[in-house]
Amino acid sequence: MRNELSRRLEAEISKMPIIDPHTHLQHQTPSAGLIGNIFGYHYIKMELSTAGMDVEKSMDDSLPPDDFLKDAVPFIPRIRNTTTWWGFMTICKALGFEDDTINEGNWQDLCKVAAETMQSENWYLKALDSINIKRSFLTNLPDEDMTYCNMDAFVPSLRTDEWVLEIAEQATREKLEKLTDTSVDSLKTLKDCIHKVAERFVGIGAASMAISLTPDFRAFAVSEGDAEVLYDKVLQGKRLTDVELARLRSHILYSLFEMCDELNMPFQLMLGVDRKIHRRLEWDGFSTELEMMKTFRDALNRFPNVKMVFSLLNTTLTHELAIYAKTFANCYAAGHWWYTFYPCIIKPMILERLQAAPYTKLIGWYSDSYYVEWTIAKIKLYIRTLAGTLAEIIEDGYMNEDLALEVAKAMLWDNNVEIFGLDV
Amino acid sequence: MRNELSRRLEAEISKMPIIDPHTHLQHQTPSAGLIGNIFGYHYIKMELSTAGMDVEKSMDDSLPPDDFLKDAVPFIPRIRNTTTWWGFMTICKALGFEDDTINEGNWQDLCKVAAETMQSENWYLKALDSINIKRSFLTNLPDEDMTYCNMDAFVPSLRTDEWVLEIAEQATREKLEKLTDTSVDSLKTLKDCIHKVAERFVGIGAASMAISLTPDFRAFAVSEGDAEVLYDKVLQGKRLTDVELARLRSHILYSLFEMCDELNMPFQLMLGVDRKIHRRLEWDGFSTELEMMKTFRDALNRFPNVKMVFSLLNTTLTHELAIYAKTFANCYAAGHWWYTFYPCIIKPMILERLQAAPYTKLIGWYSDSYYVEWTIAKIKLYIRTLAGTLAEIIEDGYMNEDLALEVAKAMLWDNNVEIFGLDV
Amino acid sequence: MRNELSRRLEAEISKMPIIDPHTHLQHQTPSAGLIGNIFGYHYIKMELSTAGMDVEKSMDDSLPPDDFLKDAVPFIPRIRNTTTWWGFMTICKALGFEDDTINEGNWQDLCKVAAETMQSENWYLKALDSINIKRSFLTNLPDEDMTYCNMDAFVPSLRTDEWVLEIAEQATREKLEKLTDTSVDSLKTLKDCIHKVAERFVGIGAASMAISLTPDFRAFAVSEGDAEVLYDKVLQGKRLTDVELARLRSHILYSLFEMCDELNMPFQLMLGVDRKIHRRLEWDGFSTELEMMKTFRDALNRFPNVKMVFSLLNTTLTHELAIYAKTFANCYAAGHWWYTFYPCIIKPMILERLQAAPYTKLIGWYSDSYYVEWTIAKIKLYIRTLAGTLAEIIEDGYMNEDLALEVAKAMLWDNNVEIFGLDV
Repeated sequence: MRNELSRRLEAEISKMPIIDPHTHLQHQTPSAGLIGNIFGYHYIKMELSTAGMDVEKSMDDSLPPDDFLKDAVPFIPRIRNTTTWWGFMTICKALGFEDDTINEGNWQDLCKVAAETMQSENWYLKALDSINIKRSFLTNLPDEDMTYCNMDAFVPSLRTDEWVLEIAEQATREKLEKLTDTSVDSLKTLKDCIHKVAERFVGIGAASMAISLTPDFRAFAVSEGDAEVLYDKVLQGKRLTDVELARLRSHILYSLFEMCDELNMPFQLMLGVDRKIHRRLEWDGFSTELEMMKTFRDALNRFPNVKMVFSLLNTTLTHELAIYAKTFANCYAAGHWWYTFYPCIIKPMILERLQAAPYTKLIGWYSDSYYVEWTIAKIKLYIRTLAGTLAEIIEDGYMNEDLALEVAKAMLWDNNVEIFGLDV
Repeated sequence: MRNELSRRLEAEISKMPIIDPHTHLQHQTPSAGLIGNIFGYHYIKMELSTAGMDVEKSMDDSLPPDDFLKDAVPFIPRIRNTTTWWGFMTICKALGFEDDTINEGNWQDLCKVAAETMQSENWYLKALDSINIKRSFLTNLPDEDMTYCNMDAFVPSLRTDEWVLEIAEQATREKLEKLTDTSVDSLKTLKDCIHKVAERFVGIGAASMAISLTPDFRAFAVSEGDAEVLYDKVLQGKRLTDVELARLRSHILYSLFEMCDELNMPFQLMLGVDRKIHRRLEWDGFSTELEMMKTFRDALNRFPNVKMVFSLLNTTLTHELAIYAKTFANCYAAGHWWYTFYPCIIKPMILERLQAAPYTKLIGWYSDSYYVEWTIAKIKLYIRTLAGTLAEIIEDGYMNEDLALEVAKAMLWDNNVEIFGLDV
Repeated sequence: MRNELSRRLEAEISKMPIIDPHTHLQHQTPSAGLIGNIFGYHYIKMELSTAGMDVEKSMDDSLPPDDFLKDAVPFIPRIRNTTTWWGFMTICKALGFEDDTINEGNWQDLCKVAAETMQSENWYLKALDSINIKRSFLTNLPDEDMTYCNMDAFVPSLRTDEWVLEIAEQATREKLEKLTDTSVDSLKTLKDCIHKVAERFVGIGAASMAISLTPDFRAFAVSEGDAEVLYDKVLQGKRLTDVELARLRSHILYSLFEMCDELNMPFQLMLGVDRKIHRRLEWDGFSTELEMMKTFRDALNRFPNVKMVFSLLNTTLTHELAIYAKTFANCYAAGHWWYTFYPCIIKPMILERLQAAPYTKLIGWYSDSYYVEWTIAKIKLYIRTLAGTLAEIIEDGYMNEDLALEVAKAMLWDNNVEIFGLDV
C-alpha cells in the first residue's frame, strides 16, 4: 500500500543516479522517434492481439508506425488494466501528452506531440537525464560497429549467444573468420577468434559478456579432447546428435567463462526463454525446468573469480536464485526480466533477496528496453515497487529509513559500479 | 487489509450481476435441503477427518445427513480457523441461524432453521438472487436428461471426460451407441456419435465443453490413420499399452477441439487433479508437472478459433497461465479451483493476471459448488478478496476506482457473456 | 504492515509458553559462551563470505572465536540488510550490548559483554526462560550419551539418518553392534538392533524419530524378501547399485515407520537439503523435485497411526504440504526450515496453512538452532511475523482476535504437547 513513507522513499529514490545494466538500445537511434514505435513494442502489441485486435493486419511492419494506433483505438479500453499500459501512458505524459486516455478524438494529437518531443535535439539524452540514468548497457553482437557510440551514455556488452547456441552453424564460423581475418580449422583456432573479439570489446570498454539460455540448457564440463572431436565433426560438415550438440555448447560456454576469468569480465546470464511459442506471430514465452538454476552449481564452484549475474524468467526458482546469491560469492541476482516485470512479482522477489542475501549481491533493475522511452516507464514502475517494498521492511522493523535508502542506491548504482568495474 | 476503500469496493461489487460458469449443481435439486448435506461437503468433511474425527463412522452416507453434526460438535473448534469454515458459518447465517458458533446446545436448532429455509418455496432461486447470480453453468454428462431444466437459471455444459479418458472402455462406446442409436464400428463412427451428442447439447443451449485432466496428461497431434489403428485395437477388445492409450486420448481431445471449432463452443479445461490419493476415504489431491500447461501450446496454436478456458489446481504454474492468457488470443484464465480457493492464493493470482493480461481474458470466479448454498459462501469470499486486491491496485496507482469496478464487473459478468456467447 | 493490532498480538504471543520441537542444541553446552560462536553460525558466515570476506582465513576453526569479528568489521555493513543480521543484533542486545552497530570501535566491548552474560550461572536457562521456551527438542545420534541431560529443559529426539542413508556403510552396522552388544548377520538382526536403540530412546523420554532427506529421495514399499537379499549383499561387502541402494533405504525407512507405529512415536521428516553444494566451503543448499512430497502418499496411507511431521526446504511445494495436512489425518506441517526462515516466506506459508488446514495440524515454529542465543533471535522474528499475519487474517474478517491468539498458542505449545505426547 502506498502510504506516506513509501511516497517519501519513492521521491528520494527518484533522485538517485542510476545505471541500466541491460538494454537493447541502438546506440545510433536510442529514441523511438514516433509514438507508433513505442506503441508497437511487443509488450503492448501482444496485449492488443490477445484482446482481439488483428495485429498482423493493423500493425504490420510495412505500415507507418503511427498508423498502428488508428485500428487499435477500439481495443485500447480492453488493456487499460495492465501495468504495461500504465507504462505506456506514463511515457505519453513524459512526451507532453496531457490526456488520461487515448481515443478516436486524440490519438493523432498524441502522435504529433510525441514526434515533436522525440525529434527535438538531444532528446534521448534529456530523456535519460530526466530519470537520472547515467549509463545504459547495450547488447552488442560480435560484429557490431561501435565506432560512433557515445561512451558517456552507453556501455558495450558482448552478446555471446551465437557462439554457444549456434556453434554448429557454418555462418557462426564464417562471421568469426571475417571479423578476425583468421581461418578457423579447429576448436583451438575457433577459440582464438572468439578471444580476439572479446579482447576487442574489452578494448572499447565492454563491461560484460551476456547470453540468454533456454530452460533446458545444461552447463557441465566437457574435456578439451572430447570437444575437439565434436568440433571437427562440425568442420567436416557432419550433423551433431542432440547430445553431442549439448556437449559442445556447454564446452564453449565454459570456454567463455575461462576467458571472462582471464579478462576480468562479469557474465550476465538470462535464463528461461522459449522462443516463438506463438507460431504465427513468433512471440516468445517461457517455461520452467527445475534444473535450470542448479545446473550452474558446477560453474559457480569452478570459476570463483567470474562474477555470474543471473536473471530468471519464471517465479518458481526466484527463491533458489536468492539463496545462490547468499551462498556463492561470485553469484549475483539481477532485476526482473520481461514476464516477471510486474509489481506483484517484483515485490516478493525484492523481499526474498533483501531478507536473505547481502544487498551488495543484488542488481535491482535493468530496463531491457529497445527505446529510451520505455526506460522511463520501467524505472518509474520499479522505483514505485521498490519504495513500497522497502516501506514494508522498515515498518516491520528490519531496516531503518537511512539503511533502506542506502540499499536502494546500491541496487541502482553502487553495485553496478562495483560488479562491472565501471569508471563513472 | 480491509480498509474503507476495499469495503466500498466490496459493497459495490456485491451489487453486480454474476454468472457462475462452473458448478456441479443438479438442476432438479440445486439446494442441499438439509444443513447436513452442506456440512457433509467434502471441503468440510476432510477438515473434520484430518482434525481427528472418524468420518467413516459418523458421516456415513447411510445416516440421516443432519446426524453428521452430532458427532462433529467436539471437532468443530479444531477447524474454526479455516476459510472453508468461515464459508460454512456464512451459509448458516444466510439460512437464518443467528449464533456465531455451533455446539452441543444449538446444532439441532441449526438443523431446524436451515431445513425450514431451504425447504421453503423457490428457495434456490431466492438464494441465487440474493447474491445476484443470474446463470449457473451445469456439468452435464452426455446422457443426462435435461428435459425439465430451468434454462432461466442454468446453462448446460457438456462434460467430455469419459470420451477422452475412458476411450478404451467398452461402456463408453456402448453409452454412445445407445444415446445416438448408432453402431460404433470405427473411429469415424465413434466421432460421428460424439458429434451428434455435441450438436444435441448445442441445441439445448450448452455453452461449452468441459474436461478435467490429471497433471500427467499430454496433448499432442496424432494422425487420423494412427488413431484408427489404435481404436480398431480397442474395438477388437485388445488392451492398449500406456503409450498407445495416451496417443488415442490425445487424438480424441484434438477431435473435440475440431468439433468446438465447427460448433463455435468454448472448451473449459481444468488441469491438475490426482484422483483418490487418500485411499481409504477416496479423496482427491493434486500435484504439479511442469509440462502440464506447456503441453497445450500446440493446441492453442493449431485451433486459434477455439476459446480454451483454463483452470489450474496448483500455485506453481499460475504465472505461466497468466502469461499464456496474455500471449494467445484464444487462451483464457479462469477462477480459483478447489485447493487454490483460499484468499491468500486467490489474491496473488488476481494480481498477476490483472497486471499482465487484458482483463477481457479473465474469468474471475466460478463456484464449483454442488449446492447453491455453497455458492453463497464462495462468491462472498471471492468478492471480499477481489475487493481487497483491487483496493491495493488502486492505492498503488495502476487503476482508478471506476476502472477497477468495470474490471470487476467484466470478470464476474461481461467476459462470461462474451466468451460463452450467452444470451442474457 | 505492523499496526496497533499486530503489535498487540506480538506482545500477547510473546507471553505464551513455547515448545521448540527441533534444535541442534548440545545438552551439555547449550550456550555459545562467546559471541564469536554466535557470529560464526553458518547463517552469518555465509553472508560475510558472499559479501567478499575470506572466511577460510579469517574465521578458521583454529582461531579463537571472538577473533572472527575483527576481520569481519569492514564486511558487516554489507550484510546489514538481511533478517539474519537483524537476528544477530537482537541477540547482541539480549546479551547486554547497547550499540546499534558493530564497528572497529566497539566489537571488543561486544565480545566482553557477551562473554560475561553467557558465562554467568545458569545463563542458558535464563535465556530460554526469557523467551518462555519450556522444552527444546534435541537431535540425538543413536550412540549419544544422554546421562546428564536436563530433562526439565530438553526432550530427546532420535536422529535416524545414518540407518537409512548410510545403510550400506560398514560403520553403520558396527556402531549398532557396539551399541546393542549384538552381532548383525541379517536384515532381521539389524532391525532388532535398531529396535533396541529406539526402545532405549523411548525409555529416556524421546518424543520422536527424525530424519533429513534429499529432494531425490523416494519412499516406496520394498518387500522383506527383496530387502533381505539386498542387505545380504551389503553384509558380503558387495557394492549395491544406485537402484538397489534406493530400494534398501526405502525399506529401512518403512521399517522405522513400523517401529514408530508400534512404539507410538511421531516421525519428523525434513525434506529438501542438498549437501555441500559449495564445494570449497562445504555449504549445503537445496533444490526442488516435484515428487519429493508426493512420494510420501503411500506411507501416509499405509501407516495411518504414525504421525508424520513434515518440513520443506523450498517454497514450491509448501502449498502441496498444506493440502496434505488438510487431507491426511496423520500428516502435520511444521515450521519454516533454514532457507525458508525469512519473514517474506514465513508469512505466505502461515496464511496458506491457516486458511486450508485445521490449526491443530500445524507446528508453527522450531528454531533449528545450535545455541540458545540463536533461539532468541528466531522466536522473536517468528512471533513478529506470526502476529503480522494473524492481524491481516483478523482484519480480513476470517478470525476474531480471541481465536487468533488461541491458534497462536496451539501452534507454539498445545499442538506440540498433543502431537508428541509431551508430559509438561
